[in-house]
Amino acid sequence: MNTHKSIFDKCYAFTEAEDARATGLYPFFKPISRSAGSKVYVHGRELLMLGSNNYLGLANDPRLVEAARIATEKFGTSCSGSRFMNGTLDLHEELEARLASFVGKEDALCFSTGYQSNLGSISALLNRGDHVIVDKYDHASIMDGVFLAEGLKHNINLHRYNHNNLKELEKELARIPLEEPKLIVVDGVFSMEGDIVPLPEVKALADKYHAGIYLDEAHAIGVVGRNGRGTCEHFGGDFSLADIIMCTFSKSFGSLGGFVAGDRKVIDYIRHAARPLMFSASMPPANIAAASRALDIMQNEPELIHKLQRNARLLIDGFTAAGFNTGTTETPIVPLVIGDNEKTFLLWKALYEGGIYVNPVISPAVPPQRSLLRISCMAVHEESELSQAIDLISDEARKLGII
Amino acid sequence: MNTHKSIFDKCYAFTEAEDARATGLYPFFKPISRSAGSKVYVHGRELLMLGSNNYLGLANDPRLVEAARIATEKFGTSCSGSRFMNGTLDLHEELEARLASFVGKEDALCFSTGYQSNLGSISALLNRGDHVIVDKYDHASIMDGVFLAEGLKHNINLHRYNHNNLKELEKELARIPLEEPKLIVVDGVFSMEGDIVPLPEVKALADKYHAGIYLDEAHAIGVVGRNGRGTCEHFGGDFSLADIIMCTFSKSFGSLGGFVAGDRKVIDYIRHAARPLMFSASMPPANIAAASRALDIMQNEPELIHKLQRNARLLIDGFTAAGFNTGTTETPIVPLVIGDNEKTFLLWKALYEGGIYVNPVISPAVPPQRSLLRISCMAVHEESELSQAIDLISDEARKLGII
Repeated sequence: MNTHKSIFDKCYAFTEAEDARATGLYPFFKPISRSAGSKVYVHGRELLMLGSNNYLGLANDPRLVEAARIATEKFGTSCSGSRFMNGTLDLHEELEARLASFVGKEDALCFSTGYQSNLGSISALLNRGDHVIVDKYDHASIMDGVFLAEGLKHNINLHRYNHNNLKELEKELARIPLEEPKLIVVDGVFSMEGDIVPLPEVKALADKYHAGIYLDEAHAIGVVGRNGRGTCEHFGGDFSLADIIMCTFSKSFGSLGGFVAGDRKVIDYIRHAARPLMFSASMPPANIAAASRALDIMQNEPELIHKLQRNARLLIDGFTAAGFNTGTTETPIVPLVIGDNEKTFLLWKALYEGGIYVNPVISPAVPPQRSLLRISCMAVHEESELSQAIDLISDEARKLGII
Repeated sequence: MNTHKSIFDKCYAFTEAEDARATGLYPFFKPISRSAGSKVYVHGRELLMLGSNNYLGLANDPRLVEAARIATEKFGTSCSGSRFMNGTLDLHEELEARLASFVGKEDALCFSTGYQSNLGSISALLNRGDHVIVDKYDHASIMDGVFLAEGLKHNINLHRYNHNNLKELEKELARIPLEEPKLIVVDGVFSMEGDIVPLPEVKALADKYHAGIYLDEAHAIGVVGRNGRGTCEHFGGDFSLADIIMCTFSKSFGSLGGFVAGDRKVIDYIRHAARPLMFSASMPPANIAAASRALDIMQNEPELIHKLQRNARLLIDGFTAAGFNTGTTETPIVPLVIGDNEKTFLLWKALYEGGIYVNPVISPAVPPQRSLLRISCMAVHEESELSQAIDLISDEARKLGII
């Protein structure tokens, strides 16, 4: 009798995705065949894109396309090696110097994805016995940095506090012996709720308890602050509010990759300790060039950032007026909190069929009472497109008894 | 008195890199300003590149450059989202279907880096209580997949055996209760030593002990096998020798990214369980298009692969004849085993100054007695370039008493 268990049994027992596909309520991995401005095309149908992180619309900007072309012609389609070995180009170093200056730090280091930037930097900074304190809504790549450190080194002390709850943050900090090393890791703008971390208050607590601050600006740079320089600028422009600033290139920067910035010695340490830097091929020339061109545009065209910020305000005000629970967002990420997985899917489906692309976020990704549609706007949306979308979404939500 | 320890103390205490830079014996992160065929340019000097993973030379192939340009013009410089959400293009699905067929599997799934392909697939497949058995020379991204699983889920049973030692592999397998789930993870071609896993023998042991096999083909596809289809083809073409086949795009494919391939149900499970897939932006259009064009070329121009294989033979025979210990390599990766960190650095420096770019690999990356120069050739090397390089390297090694 064959009683052994295969490592793959879990795969053959997994039927949830097939079941969802069968009901027509499977919203994931929809293949886009073309993007143009605010529109995308899926299975031949045009949809209004309200679910992209292409906040400034730069992923389709001819200037980034051109920069990618020139870099590829000159340097090829791959660096064919790790930054550590043969994968460092002048281009990487030039972009790093510019980024460091943009976020007010001494040095910066690029990784091939934003995910690897967090995974690598956080797992490098945490050693056995260190404490890391995270907001429960921090991005998964931050948590994976903690988990990788735990798997590699063991005895990483993880402390989680409820979202943006400063009292709980202080309670966690106060529980840790004052002399032990601690790092607070927070998103600047939270990816699903669109709200902003109260950074000055977090900084005051960090100083009181001798903790470092690591700030993930994935949804903040290009998005908040008068010049799009992120959460520190949003709170007045003091970039020492965070010790380390991290960002991805796959959102406002219209590319793929990411970086961390901080003191020269801290970055040099990460450069030699981050396994996802050492053991992964470096950013290809096209990806560097696109991110670099996006940085030019952010620095020279603040009006693009202001347009995004106006669109965000229009969306927040419109949905709030229609009766939606939009949480405490202040950014282009507007959650429509529904609090029911099935209704969330049904509204997603009605919108998808009605020509609007949005992202459903359900448990276990969020607690069941926070299941939501994540709406996000871009600088390339016309005000009229957004107004019409608000009306259509509100109509469908009313039919479902959501508002 | 201030006695608290900062999380960043470890960074300020780290001086090894600065010390090495001061001695002139720091070989890492050399910024390349240009690549052309077999040559690279660093700080204005031309060097013969013998340290790239661009095995087929495709990273600088005009056809890949053109494919990247067309895809970028049509689809932009970024997908601005995860595969799960708005980051799936028709292009991803088309490439996945072709790759699955190329490696004889039902389905395939692309990740944004090769590193994330291993990290995500392995951490998805391993659950609490599962056993994973790895070769001690397996790539770091495999180990990080195990460590991430451990940090996330705990009680992953890790078993390591000495490199390519089948007796030890069997001993480890025999120690595990027969009914418990187990996965053997091996490189097809080992990244530092260039030797090939004895896959048929591993498969026989896997069958005997009911283990699955996960095969990392990063340095094998495009490199070994009559048609470059990797380790399974090298051993006769039975692709069921491995349950899962993984590869990166940053080596022979001349791009960035990677994939896993296997049974449809297994891939669908990974698609819904791999955090580095869900929480990272997808492969940009240029990277997909370059990898796809590389696959065309591999399928249509086996002569390119044969040229690489001839160059590899020339390199191995040349260095062996000169008296180097080249281990048991059969591929374009030729280790010159020196077994002494300082001599390895000194030979690296002499070659760097003499116009040859190679990679030193020292402890702790390898055991001290295996410190080595990793030489790798490409299809674009002329035989005369390789012969001259062998002579120059041998001369310098003799001066240092290495041979």
